[in-house]
Amino acid sequence: MKMTALYVPTLKEAPGDAEVVSHKLLVRAGFIRKLTSGIYVYLPMAWRALNKISAVVREEMTRAGAQEILMPMVQPGDLWKETGRWEFYGKELLRFKDRHDRDYCLGPTHEEVVTDLVRGEVKSYRQLPLNLFQIQTKFRDEIRPRFGLMRGREFIMKDAYSFDTNEEGADKSYWAMHGAYTRIFSRLGLKFRAVEADTGSIGGNFSHEFMVLADTGEDTIAFCDACEWAANLEKAQVKPAAAAAGDKDAAPAEVVATPGAHTVEEVAAFLKVSPTAIVKTLLFDADGEIVAALVRGDRELNEIKLKNHLDATALSLALPEVVATVTGAPVGFAGPVGLKVARIVIDQELQGATGCIVGANQADAHLLHVDLARDLDSATVAYADLRMITAEDPCPACGGAVRLAKGIEVGHVFKLGLKYSQAMDAKFLDEQGKERHMIMGCYGIGVSRILAACIEQNHDADGIVFPPPVSPFEVAVLSLAGNDETVAAKAQELYTMLCNNRIDALLDDRAERPGVKFKDADLIGTPLQIVVGGKALARGVVEVKNRRTGEKGELPVDNFLHAFSVWRQGVLDAWVCQGVPGPASAC
Amino acid sequence: MKMTALYVPTLKEAPGDAEVVSHKLLVRAGFIRKLTSGIYVYLPMAWRALNKISAVVREEMTRAGAQEILMPMVQPGDLWKETGRWEFYGKELLRFKDRHDRDYCLGPTHEEVVTDLVRGEVKSYRQLPLNLFQIQTKFRDEIRPRFGLMRGREFIMKDAYSFDTNEEGADKSYWAMHGAYTRIFSRLGLKFRAVEADTGSIGGNFSHEFMVLADTGEDTIAFCDACEWAANLEKAQVKPAAAAAGDKDAAPAEVVATPGAHTVEEVAAFLKVSPTAIVKTLLFDADGEIVAALVRGDRELNEIKLKNHLDATALSLALPEVVATVTGAPVGFAGPVGLKVARIVIDQELQGATGCIVGANQADAHLLHVDLARDLDSATVAYADLRMITAEDPCPACGGAVRLAKGIEVGHVFKLGLKYSQAMDAKFLDEQGKERHMIMGCYGIGVSRILAACIEQNHDADGIVFPPPVSPFEVAVLSLAGNDETVAAKAQELYTMLCNNRIDALLDDRAERPGVKFKDADLIGTPLQIVVGGKALARGVVEVKNRRTGEKGELPVDNFLHAFSVWRQGVLDAWVCQGVPGPASAC
Repeated sequence: MKMTALYVPTLKEAPGDAEVVSHKLLVRAGFIRKLTSGIYVYLPMAWRALNKISAVVREEMTRAGAQEILMPMVQPGDLWKETGRWEFYGKELLRFKDRHDRDYCLGPTHEEVVTDLVRGEVKSYRQLPLNLFQIQTKFRDEIRPRFGLMRGREFIMKDAYSFDTNEEGADKSYWAMHGAYTRIFSRLGLKFRAVEADTGSIGGNFSHEFMVLADTGEDTIAFCDACEWAANLEKAQVKPAAAAAGDKDAAPAEVVATPGAHTVEEVAAFLKVSPTAIVKTLLFDADGEIVAALVRGDRELNEIKLKNHLDATALSLALPEVVATVTGAPVGFAGPVGLKVARIVIDQELQGATGCIVGANQADAHLLHVDLARDLDSATVAYADLRMITAEDPCPACGGAVRLAKGIEVGHVFKLGLKYSQAMDAKFLDEQGKERHMIMGCYGIGVSRILAACIEQNHDADGIVFPPPVSPFEVAVLSLAGNDETVAAKAQELYTMLCNNRIDALLDDRAERPGVKFKDADLIGTPLQIVVGGKALARGVVEVKNRRTGEKGELPVDNFLHAFSVWRQGVLDAWVCQGVPGPASAC
Repeated sequence: MKMTALYVPTLKEAPGDAEVVSHKLLVRAGFIRKLTSGIYVYLPMAWRALNKISAVVREEMTRAGAQEILMPMVQPGDLWKETGRWEFYGKELLRFKDRHDRDYCLGPTHEEVVTDLVRGEVKSYRQLPLNLFQIQTKFRDEIRPRFGLMRGREFIMKDAYSFDTNEEGADKSYWAMHGAYTRIFSRLGLKFRAVEADTGSIGGNFSHEFMVLADTGEDTIAFCDACEWAANLEKAQVKPAAAAAGDKDAAPAEVVATPGAHTVEEVAAFLKVSPTAIVKTLLFDADGEIVAALVRGDRELNEIKLKNHLDATALSLALPEVVATVTGAPVGFAGPVGLKVARIVIDQELQGATGCIVGANQADAHLLHVDLARDLDSATVAYADLRMITAEDPCPACGGAVRLAKGIEVGHVFKLGLKYSQAMDAKFLDEQGKERHMIMGCYGIGVSRILAACIEQNHDADGIVFPPPVSPFEVAVLSLAGNDETVAAKAQELYTMLCNNRIDALLDDRAERPGVKFKDADLIGTPLQIVVGGKALARGVVEVKNRRTGEKGELPVDNFLHAFSVWRQGVLDAWVCQGVPGPASAC
């Protein structure tokens, strides 16, 4: 493609509303334009990149046995009423009525539609397993769309749905998708990790998130340096420490005044103790019941773990007035002793803890010398893994060192089990002629989000640094012709040679100064750059540059294609194995 | 692809709601399933066919200089308010509000969005011309969706928009698209005609519709056997006949009773005259004004022509009470003499007509001996081309014979002019530094409708007869193995050989009876069939069948690929030149 025939409106400045680097660079490099909040136009460069991503997704999905279809974006409300999600999905589901006043919504996901399709067609175990996927524009009416393509309202997604006759088959379908995803993100040249994820209220046995590693990621993942273990922070199990044979504190619990000290840090400073000596008491409303959760003063409670332990549908911090009622004190002084709640859940590392400092359920006061086993009613107490893992914890799988990293979720595989097939009565006849519900899985990839995540992971001060498989073009040929027709002709010749050899090349043939061409080539992130200039040509060479490393070199014009191929292969090989922290998924 | 790994749920019966053959066959052949009224799921076979169509569209659009982008499906109401279409578009525009109560709609077309994009970016004539296209799912809330993919609510469309600095450039852009469309439909193996179409209320100079010829088409087109002229029926100009030197009827107009005769046929029979002697008077409401239109008794009034002549925005038949007021008689007896209307428009062939029979503006009565020039107030009268063309008319371009045919509109190219650029103030600076509005064109192709139209044109009693470029697979290999492993192995071998040579092949490896395989192969319409059976194999051959002609033959298993290639080329060549009535657009 010639740049004079390509609409790439690069900009010097990023838009004022762009907070993250991918949003800034996608706009500056002329890839996207905002139509309205959370809704973007994909210009030719973005569309090329998205098609490259989609092609890899499509190939690997097909290789894994999934079949491509296209389901509608407009979905009848009736199907969502069958699963109950018409009520429960929340405002992200954009509902509307058609001209005949019937309920519809814009599809944010397609479990209902695909289950409706399959229940109408599949009658026998002979027709299973079945895995159907699509690459489609989806809509979620996010309350606060932000970060450009990272969290838009309209976005491109690959979603797949598997149907199996039994658990073994469903597990096989699940792991086939897990494998396909691993190949997809590897082929796209991304550093990523597949992490165990919480299955939440959907239930089921398995869920993994695929995280592109990037410092700007909204999510935190934990992984082991020594083994394959990796999990998102909410899911990451904490390995129970050996029971502390702590000093038995014979002293009885004792109220101490702590005027003006509210936070753990303030109380620790006031009492001149370590925050580890303090036990935090947090009060929650779990499906209407008030529950206390205790973690060490320096720890962070993991609400997902608490919710799962309680098997609660809805969990939220108790309201201030509720806290006042159950503690008899203002917010900030809750403690487990004498608390009017039926259940107290304590983090496992506090099992056997003595000499604890807790809130006294009185304003400006704490209790010292608390022995949780001695001072609490054991009938109300349970111990569980309640806190966030930290980089100081051992790997729950092998005991190795845990590392934390920021990531961007770009894929999610999920074993759904019977949730939708039961709600929508999707049945088949098994080998014994017995009716049974199909076992389902669902598998999503954020195609447009990959483009953003890829840039969050791969950029520098000059612009995007595309992995070659994602870049709209693999090679940019910069013609520094000015008025020199020999240069223009040679640039054209090399460009044509590359195209004829199926190399995806872009020729910058614009009547612009060299500086503009250099800046734009770096901004749009083309991995390989070839600079055709008069002086170098006079010496029989062209300059080349590796966008990622900045390394420059020269290639002879004679026998150019051979020299280019060698250089190109070196650059591509180096991209594939940049290395991923921990046992590499991408290499 | 192997059929055991392909979800093709063929059916013996068509669904009860399917009225047209493409709808019946698409469902029976396992290509589509209905989700809800006018909204379908594209199953793997349809998706393959649609991708083949899209690939050709994409290639030819790109070759013609258009650039692919993707615009959002959800569009802000504000843009539609700028052009006034928020009010005028009617209920086909599905409007809704987001969670913040802002107006949005589902895009049925993208003039507003693309104009908004370009006005924000393009500042100088140096950035023009620009032609942007997309292939996208669109939504129109049809009041009565029907005919499967022919008139659905959700459908796939290619839409393109061109922006030029001057009329000459805009015309060039228009004809480039006209040429691209001609190549697209030719490459898809369709018999089609490009016809002049009405530009309607949008105005502008040019508009052509691309019609796939099919007896089941909803539209009628007229074309010349001798020259390139072709137009849709509404647009088709009637060549004015030489002024009739008819007998001067000196007799004055005279009322005659015609009891019980209402229609032209009844009056003609009662008076024992030809319907050509009668002149029909039709009363219309044109933007609030009542207008009379006169055509010969045997002619059909073309309302589009009348509307264009009157330059009316809205035109409809006058209500019965209005007819009663202006005629002073019940409906059915209107005539031009003494009619209380300010304007009477008369079809051009009635210029100089005498001895006419018209309604008498009295119940059960007509006027004889009417001389339109003599008996009407010339201040109220105008003559114009008002009627539908017929197969008896001469070609308006060359005088040759006109033919009529049924067609299905699959493409439409349109020179928009300034309509949207003025409404949305999309300007550029010209070479003199003067601000001017861009000149636009828009160009649509109904991608999913092509699939249906293609089947309407190409089918027989056994099923679909796909043109090779549209067929999901080019070759079907039917393995009649039963328990014969030699046959299964040979079928697999030939199939693999075809795949390795980039031939798009489908292997029917199902454990089904030969009859089922034959029926399904015909139903899904694969152009080339190879039947691998035990008896033929014993003779060293496989049977082959040309789906379109039904011709059968045998190919040797030894040196199979060569023999297959020769046979294949013959079948493909015959498809390309099936011939199109009139000067061939497709050959």
